Amino acid sequence: MTKIDKIAVFGGGSWATAIVKMLSENMNEVGWYMRNSYVIEHIKRNNHNPNYLSSADLHPKKLFLSDDINEMIEYAECLIFAIPSAFLKSELDKVKIPLDGKIIFSAIKGIVPETGLIVGEHFHDKLNVPFENIGVITGPCHAEEVAMERLSYLTLACQDEEKAICLSEKIAGRYIKTKISDDIIGTEYAAMLKNIFAVSAGIAHGLGYGDNFQAVLMSNAIREMKRFIKKVHKMKRNINNSAYLGDLLVTGYSVFSRNRMFGNMIGKGYTVKSAMLEMSMVAEGYYATKSAYKINKKNKAKTPIIDAVYAILYENKEAKIEFQKLTDLLD
Amino acid sequence: MTKIDKIAVFGGGSWATAIVKMLSENMNEVGWYMRNSYVIEHIKRNNHNPNYLSSADLHPKKLFLSDDINEMIEYAECLIFAIPSAFLKSELDKVKIPLDGKIIFSAIKGIVPETGLIVGEHFHDKLNVPFENIGVITGPCHAEEVAMERLSYLTLACQDEEKAICLSEKIAGRYIKTKISDDIIGTEYAAMLKNIFAVSAGIAHGLGYGDNFQAVLMSNAIREMKRFIKKVHKMKRNINNSAYLGDLLVTGYSVFSRNRMFGNMIGKGYTVKSAMLEMSMVAEGYYATKSAYKINKKNKAKTPIIDAVYAILYENKEAKIEFQKLTDLLD
Repeated sequence: MTKIDKIAVFGGGSWATAIVKMLSENMNEVGWYMRNSYVIEHIKRNNHNPNYLSSADLHPKKLFLSDDINEMIEYAECLIFAIPSAFLKSELDKVKIPLDGKIIFSAIKGIVPETGLIVGEHFHDKLNVPFENIGVITGPCHAEEVAMERLSYLTLACQDEEKAICLSEKIAGRYIKTKISDDIIGTEYAAMLKNIFAVSAGIAHGLGYGDNFQAVLMSNAIREMKRFIKKVHKMKRNINNSAYLGDLLVTGYSVFSRNRMFGNMIGKGYTVKSAMLEMSMVAEGYYATKSAYKINKKNKAKTPIIDAVYAILYENKEAKIEFQKLTDLLD
Repeated sequence: MTKIDKIAVFGGGSWATAIVKMLSENMNEVGWYMRNSYVIEHIKRNNHNPNYLSSADLHPKKLFLSDDINEMIEYAECLIFAIPSAFLKSELDKVKIPLDGKIIFSAIKGIVPETGLIVGEHFHDKLNVPFENIGVITGPCHAEEVAMERLSYLTLACQDEEKAICLSEKIAGRYIKTKISDDIIGTEYAAMLKNIFAVSAGIAHGLGYGDNFQAVLMSNAIREMKRFIKKVHKMKRNINNSAYLGDLLVTGYSVFSRNRMFGNMIGKGYTVKSAMLEMSMVAEGYYATKSAYKINKKNKAKTPIIDAVYAILYENKEAKIEFQKLTDLLD
């Protein structure tokens, strides 16, 4: 029976903070790596992350904090990565310690831009981590609601389900329910694709489309997600499970989603560059769009929404016209 | 080839008004029956419905208005009913004219409380209208957005698809796209069930559950809808099409939905009676819950959400406790 005693979370953002909070409810010690040593000092003194999810009370006595990624990898048996995918590679480039035997869970919803791979594939292909040691944490989950201790459901996926179960026992609690899945590829692609669809929802909103259209868009998006994932990794899955449809909905309908916000600005006429500058945040969906479009060029699933978003973000096409064309392809 | 030249809409509410607006874009004359002769006079004088969707400009010159239901039935070849299901039977009791040869479309999202039947079945079983003359208009569609001429997609379902196509040509236009389906039973049950799920979303919100839970609830709701409808009328259908999933989402995520509002009050502690009095509106989901629960007693689909809503609305069970139990049944 797999046992996991030492877990470390990598990343200093809101999702990393939320995962640390969940783990601290059940564990006596949680490892937490982040680049910024000032933030570490702040957490130690003030019991909260100053930059993200600052309302979440943390318990510094339970935290083993470090800004040394190698120290943290050495410490933990199970590594949970929650670094934005755009920064993952540069962080991993610092790693000098072998990852042999480490269980790696990705809580990152995106593509590694440098390799065009989803995170699980990146760890497998580039860092030789076997798939049975790779997992995914996903689910319809705003970190902000974890901070508020509002009931949330997470899906833990791993080819070796025992490892998923093992981690789930450390995560489930008063306000967190967990579900196990063996579809690491599908859940991770879903988590990435939903960001593109959230961008599309934002663009639609920015262009003045209403709730009726949004419902049609999301109903088409889940079918598009199903077709896309089926081409990438064919297996029996219910696309309406929380890890796929739920995750799409929580992002697509959220007014706080940075992907939706980014899309909204594009719809309102901002250029990609100015929208990014204005937000001073990374919209995962921006990178995801490029990768998904490329992947699908080979796979040839019918993906009118991804195609439209790609044309707008990467080919300088006018959002208004692309969406007019898109409305004829939806039903 | 079926031809429909004379169409009449029955009902004075917002959905009836929206349908009249759509038809008037394409037709020279549209029949419109409503009980209230004062409203008819107001429309004639002021070009809008004073009570519902008052921002929608109507064209009285194109309208044949009457408060005599028999006159209107005599007038039209195609009758579109958009009367709240709770009042349908008492309206139909006034009908003295035979319905032979009339094409009847239901735009009503509910169950006829007196017979426990969906509207299509009611016309078939109680008024001897053959199924090939019965259709359903459904879709993710807030009437308010039709008034604003925001792009909306409607599904027209009829066993005799030619009739659905024929009516769709009168409805489709600048801001309305239409889709044809032969699943009259499934689309109508979906339209009814989504109101129950909207009530459940409202209860959850009233109890303080957040967006993460809402996404899980909707992801479970669409699976529950699929199981329920499959038992009632088994056929090949994609439950993620707009007429099913889209319709669920537009209602479940709408803050304007009266069903959601009703549920919200229940979740906040109002009794059923006081919530109804306070709203001074009919929440279709209230009646739908009873009927769906009864129907499913025979069919035995797994319907934890409907069961929980039923227990709260009809068995005086405490919402908080029923939802706590429900959260363990969802995933």
